[in-house]
Amino acid sequence: MLMARQRLPVPELFQAALDGDRSSLARLLSLIERGDDEAREIGRLAYPRSGAGYTVGLTGAPGAGKSTLTSSIIGHLRSLELEIAVLAIDPSSPFTGGAILGDRVRMQDHATDPGVFIRSMATRGHLGGLSLATPEAVRALDAIGRHWILVETVGVGQVEVEVAGKADTTVVVVNPGWGDSVQANKAGLMEIADVFVINKADRKGADETRRDLMQMLDLSDLDHDTWRPPIVSTVGTTGEGIVELWDTVLEHRAHVESSGVLAERRTFRLREELREIIAQRLGRRAREICTGDRWDELTEEVVARSTDPWTAADEMLVGLA
Amino acid sequence: MLMARQRLPVPELFQAALDGDRSSLARLLSLIERGDDEAREIGRLAYPRSGAGYTVGLTGAPGAGKSTLTSSIIGHLRSLELEIAVLAIDPSSPFTGGAILGDRVRMQDHATDPGVFIRSMATRGHLGGLSLATPEAVRALDAIGRHWILVETVGVGQVEVEVAGKADTTVVVVNPGWGDSVQANKAGLMEIADVFVINKADRKGADETRRDLMQMLDLSDLDHDTWRPPIVSTVGTTGEGIVELWDTVLEHRAHVESSGVLAERRTFRLREELREIIAQRLGRRAREICTGDRWDELTEEVVARSTDPWTAADEMLVGLA
Repeated sequence: MLMARQRLPVPELFQAALDGDRSSLARLLSLIERGDDEAREIGRLAYPRSGAGYTVGLTGAPGAGKSTLTSSIIGHLRSLELEIAVLAIDPSSPFTGGAILGDRVRMQDHATDPGVFIRSMATRGHLGGLSLATPEAVRALDAIGRHWILVETVGVGQVEVEVAGKADTTVVVVNPGWGDSVQANKAGLMEIADVFVINKADRKGADETRRDLMQMLDLSDLDHDTWRPPIVSTVGTTGEGIVELWDTVLEHRAHVESSGVLAERRTFRLREELREIIAQRLGRRAREICTGDRWDELTEEVVARSTDPWTAADEMLVGLA
Repeated sequence: MLMARQRLPVPELFQAALDGDRSSLARLLSLIERGDDEAREIGRLAYPRSGAGYTVGLTGAPGAGKSTLTSSIIGHLRSLELEIAVLAIDPSSPFTGGAILGDRVRMQDHATDPGVFIRSMATRGHLGGLSLATPEAVRALDAIGRHWILVETVGVGQVEVEVAGKADTTVVVVNPGWGDSVQANKAGLMEIADVFVINKADRKGADETRRDLMQMLDLSDLDHDTWRPPIVSTVGTTGEGIVELWDTVLEHRAHVESSGVLAERRTFRLREELREIIAQRLGRRAREICTGDRWDELTEEVVARSTDPWTAADEMLVGLA
């Protein structure tokens, strides 16, 4: 049966996932992660069916308690009888293919709940990297009816911030005394945050951290006229503050939906994605060009100075650029 | 007269530079630095005339005394009645167009000597960046008859090491107690060094530095069967060791010329350059594609979900990739 599913053509896999088969969905995501022709086929099937889903990005320094927080959010959403998908993104990890990453173990509580679908993704595999794999995975989940999608990233590096910043609502998780751990990318985090969470708020320094954040928001150049990121305090391990956090996410969603900001952001993201697809396609073409007999001949002519590099490039690129 | 020269067509400028007019040469290098169509025209003129020149790269941490050393080398070569060109490359500087950078002032001693041509280049300007501008500038100097070309880079970052590593002989300049200042890129420096110079060798710690270098060379994986980088001690400010340094450069030149290593390296570099030209040409094409009416229409269709990003990309790339 497993072997059979592995060999199922994409349209049948997709239909099975639509019908609620979790293994088929997992297989679809593996194909997306690989990023070859089948990923594109899935993309074409998912794309027209997507758009109703809403993504919430969670990011913060390692150890900030994001997984515990995610687990608490899942619990809250399940109590509201909402279905949910979680993408845990680890740009630095070589593990992939649905493997449970490090502290993701905490989410295992929900692993047997059919209303919850948890998936880890890493950079390895997808030809276009996470910048293309993540939106494709989100759209597949969206298309098969998972309308709440949490995208959790494990760090505060450039890639994590970029991935998290592409969500519809981005939650930045900090801890009391957070400053040092994210020093390098504070500006990046300030820019993407729609909601700040001070997690482990029962620890010393929570009030100072709130004051720090308030001050940073006061001083920032960002346009907070229409939406100033609220600061919510939580204790992930006890679930304290989770309801308030989720209500704040809902408030932000209502704001971006009614103000037109959501439509703008999504249009911007799609344009960026299309640019990236085109750039990568041309990059692949460049690698194809710089090989083969004609390439060998031309480089020899350049070396022998019977032609120059620009004329050789023109010749390699005839009809292309 | 200056205005007239500014407007001179490239072939006439080139001929004037060939005839020894320094201002025309300076103008050629400015055009190369800008990197547009005229740069390519110069490239095509210079390419078949180049190949007799020999480049010596000098790199090392800021403050290692490279400019003083360069100035001493110039003095030595002038005493041998050799003509020389110096390209001072500063990837981090926004200054360009022949500006004298920072400590380059020391080279001013030679500024009025017609046998010496000194030029600073920075990243700003050339569309292809320094990776393309540097070899183009070297070839122009070579083509107009400057057969010794020193390429000095100001730091030990990735870009500096890459630029310096593309010379025919690469001299890495260190100081007593150098370890800390280049820690981050020791491996990169070890890889490109054909000759090590311990400059400021009259200072404390020179012997330890020599031992350190010897040990690093012993431990390195690099193939030193045919050429193990010699270590020369110099005091740039007094000129001590300069003759030995230059003799070592000449030894290395003789080695790479007779062993075939020089031909191999140059072929490799030309292939890399051709690849870079092709990649950049395609990248420019990608930027051109992602603009205009058709682009606007297609992105709107993608946003409206009447088409998907891959179909849109296919359509934008018809005939291209």
